[in-house]
Amino acid sequence: MNVFAQRRAALLGLLQGPALLLAGRPRARNYPANPYPYRAESHFLYFTGASLPRAALWLDAGASTLFVDLPAPDDELWHGPQPGADALREATGVDEVRPLEALPSVVAQALGRGLSTLPANDPVDRHWQNQHLGRDWPLAGTAAITRDSDVALAEAVIALRLKHDGAALAMMEHALEGTAAAHLRGMAVTRPGRHEAEIRAAMEHELLARGLSPAYGSIVTVHGEVLHNVHYDHVATAGDLLLADVGGEAHGWASDITRTWPVSGRFSATQRALYEIVLAAQHDAIAAVRPHARYRDVHLRACLTIAQGLVDEGILVGTPETLVERGAHALLFPHGIGHLLGLDVHDMEDLGDRAGYAPGRTRSPQFGLGYLRLDRDLEPGMVVTIEPGIYQVPALLQSPELAGPFLADGTLRLERLAAFSDVRGIRIEDDVLCTDTGHRVLSRAIPKLPAEVEAQVGSQP
Amino acid sequence: MNVFAQRRAALLGLLQGPALLLAGRPRARNYPANPYPYRAESHFLYFTGASLPRAALWLDAGASTLFVDLPAPDDELWHGPQPGADALREATGVDEVRPLEALPSVVAQALGRGLSTLPANDPVDRHWQNQHLGRDWPLAGTAAITRDSDVALAEAVIALRLKHDGAALAMMEHALEGTAAAHLRGMAVTRPGRHEAEIRAAMEHELLARGLSPAYGSIVTVHGEVLHNVHYDHVATAGDLLLADVGGEAHGWASDITRTWPVSGRFSATQRALYEIVLAAQHDAIAAVRPHARYRDVHLRACLTIAQGLVDEGILVGTPETLVERGAHALLFPHGIGHLLGLDVHDMEDLGDRAGYAPGRTRSPQFGLGYLRLDRDLEPGMVVTIEPGIYQVPALLQSPELAGPFLADGTLRLERLAAFSDVRGIRIEDDVLCTDTGHRVLSRAIPKLPAEVEAQVGSQP
Repeated sequence: MNVFAQRRAALLGLLQGPALLLAGRPRARNYPANPYPYRAESHFLYFTGASLPRAALWLDAGASTLFVDLPAPDDELWHGPQPGADALREATGVDEVRPLEALPSVVAQALGRGLSTLPANDPVDRHWQNQHLGRDWPLAGTAAITRDSDVALAEAVIALRLKHDGAALAMMEHALEGTAAAHLRGMAVTRPGRHEAEIRAAMEHELLARGLSPAYGSIVTVHGEVLHNVHYDHVATAGDLLLADVGGEAHGWASDITRTWPVSGRFSATQRALYEIVLAAQHDAIAAVRPHARYRDVHLRACLTIAQGLVDEGILVGTPETLVERGAHALLFPHGIGHLLGLDVHDMEDLGDRAGYAPGRTRSPQFGLGYLRLDRDLEPGMVVTIEPGIYQVPALLQSPELAGPFLADGTLRLERLAAFSDVRGIRIEDDVLCTDTGHRVLSRAIPKLPAEVEAQVGSQP
Repeated sequence: MNVFAQRRAALLGLLQGPALLLAGRPRARNYPANPYPYRAESHFLYFTGASLPRAALWLDAGASTLFVDLPAPDDELWHGPQPGADALREATGVDEVRPLEALPSVVAQALGRGLSTLPANDPVDRHWQNQHLGRDWPLAGTAAITRDSDVALAEAVIALRLKHDGAALAMMEHALEGTAAAHLRGMAVTRPGRHEAEIRAAMEHELLARGLSPAYGSIVTVHGEVLHNVHYDHVATAGDLLLADVGGEAHGWASDITRTWPVSGRFSATQRALYEIVLAAQHDAIAAVRPHARYRDVHLRACLTIAQGLVDEGILVGTPETLVERGAHALLFPHGIGHLLGLDVHDMEDLGDRAGYAPGRTRSPQFGLGYLRLDRDLEPGMVVTIEPGIYQVPALLQSPELAGPFLADGTLRLERLAAFSDVRGIRIEDDVLCTDTGHRVLSRAIPKLPAEVEAQVGSQP
């Protein structure tokens, strides 16, 4: 039985009624015939392995049916020979392949039997779901799942996708091979005077050359303090740190790696001091990854190490425990320690916090902790990122609301922080598998010790 | 007056009532927070130059207003400092910048005054248009424009965008610089044993390193007979031709270039024979580009040259004129000679054939000619592609319907064509500006003579 058939069998065992998962469709870039590269919806990919546009997976009474769009007569001229029903059945292991036009009547007949679905990310598909399945979802953004049948499907899919099987891990490790090459190449071509765009191009080259695509918008910037910076228009200069958050995707499976390196090839004393704090925080957080560990505690472990480091450097004043409790560390480490990783770089984030947060747990209202994307107890087979950072974000450090109280009582010492002005943003991120006995870092091969990183930077003409 | 203000003034001079152009919004790749790289709608870009998500341009009573989404409180942390209203007014030259939330009431008040709009390519925006402007457009695909006010807006926009101003040409030439580098690099890294993915990566590297993006899905393949082949999973071998259709985009402005080169660095005699026919057809078609020339005649000029060449090689039997009239050449050159080029690689194709076909002209029902995307009389300022090709498409050559009649009467000699089995697809494409006196090839710098091409292939380790 192929892995997709295994996954579908597991899902069918968890369902009470029929379920429908749509594959999605190409999204127009500037007009319909010039679409973005097509990628099927992750739920569909997980259970079929087939990145088919305008297809649907139908699960009912122990059997699976693939509904596919019939090729147009001239498709072969423009797009090459298309797989037929037999080839699709063979590749996916489904019981039957049927034309998409037969789907509406199948759906209509199943409406009274607890039919379930998940909100498509494509708005046209979501509109179709609203019309044919009687949902009431907004066409954009994350739709709230409220019907009992849909909730049950979401919970069943989450239960499966949370814990990765061997085929999934093999794909993620394949993606990481290209990602490792990308980061090594990025370090190698970095030198003062290089444009961010050139370094980004060299890194994505390594992904594309291996048949991978970027799993998300690459971040390659000397302004790492802008957390989701997807512009590449600065020139790297000798005093800068270059932050690269770049991960490849293999057959839909993501990787997600960040490294930060000195453009000159040598960390300054101040850069190295903060870098070592981030590295120590990452080490401590990774060490905390094991079965039954609560991910929020992994996050807080990193926060404590960062707070201690900032106290040691004279930037914060207080005890780490009190600083973290009050959220003072979040002025320099505002985001969460990481997230689930799988088919999506933030795995299953299309389902909102239902995947990331265990039942009964919700986002903290505290600044910083509230950005934590995952608060579950870890289990073997889960893959998470561990990605602490230290940033000087002007909007944050100058915020009367957020920084004001800590400035007023002397907890945050901006005059001391000013000595570290050659650090705008540092992040170190690896992908970590929770194993039966602890954890395994999937991205071991990518240098992060300061001396290792320095040895790579500028090593290529 | 900046160029965007000039373009808006020209449009306002053509309009009777208020007009609304939406910018679009990021499209989810696998979940909303992981979107494809954002690119504003071309009509919006043309009149504002600003690739703003969730924005709208409002033109009314001689004035232009930009409606923009207000940044969320934590946008600066995740996305960096955002331009304020003053900066946007300065960059775009609009009269006023207002919050997007004010737009619905402005629209509602203008409904009785002949309000016009164009179908957005984003389905969420199109849904919004249907609701707020009373349109009835499908959420996917190309929407038919039927309201008088919308038709007037479409015709006005087309009249402007057909003939490029200096700023537009400068952008397209900028894009072409990177595109030329990409093709030179693609040739240089090609050798037997290279994967298509590696050659594609090397080519797109040159685009990204210059801050360009691919204007469309790059075609880099040894199976050039699949016209829109966006897979890269073959290994190039010594006997193959590599067809690369790759173009960069600069600030939204496209380029579109195809070259075909021998993987070994030397054309075989049969490859060279067909390559020379394509090159001659391109030469003859480019020579026909001048003011008042009908583009369909440019196409037919290329068809005649190809037909003559195929007769000379013994592949077709007959006179070129008769062969082209019957469509025999289309068995090997099935597509059109080219299309409009501008902000879109098929410029304004979101408006259907309204942009490409002059009033009163429609697509031919004949196979081949029916794929011609442009049938206007050329005017100075238009940029078109000229891209003849010769392909052996099995589905076409074995089609009883399309090839059958020509096989039956001996017009197509498959036994002779078999001698050319090392040619699957050849295309040569350049971007050509119609000038006051004739034409200017914008992409002169990219080698296409056989000896020039051969000198480049494999020149880089």
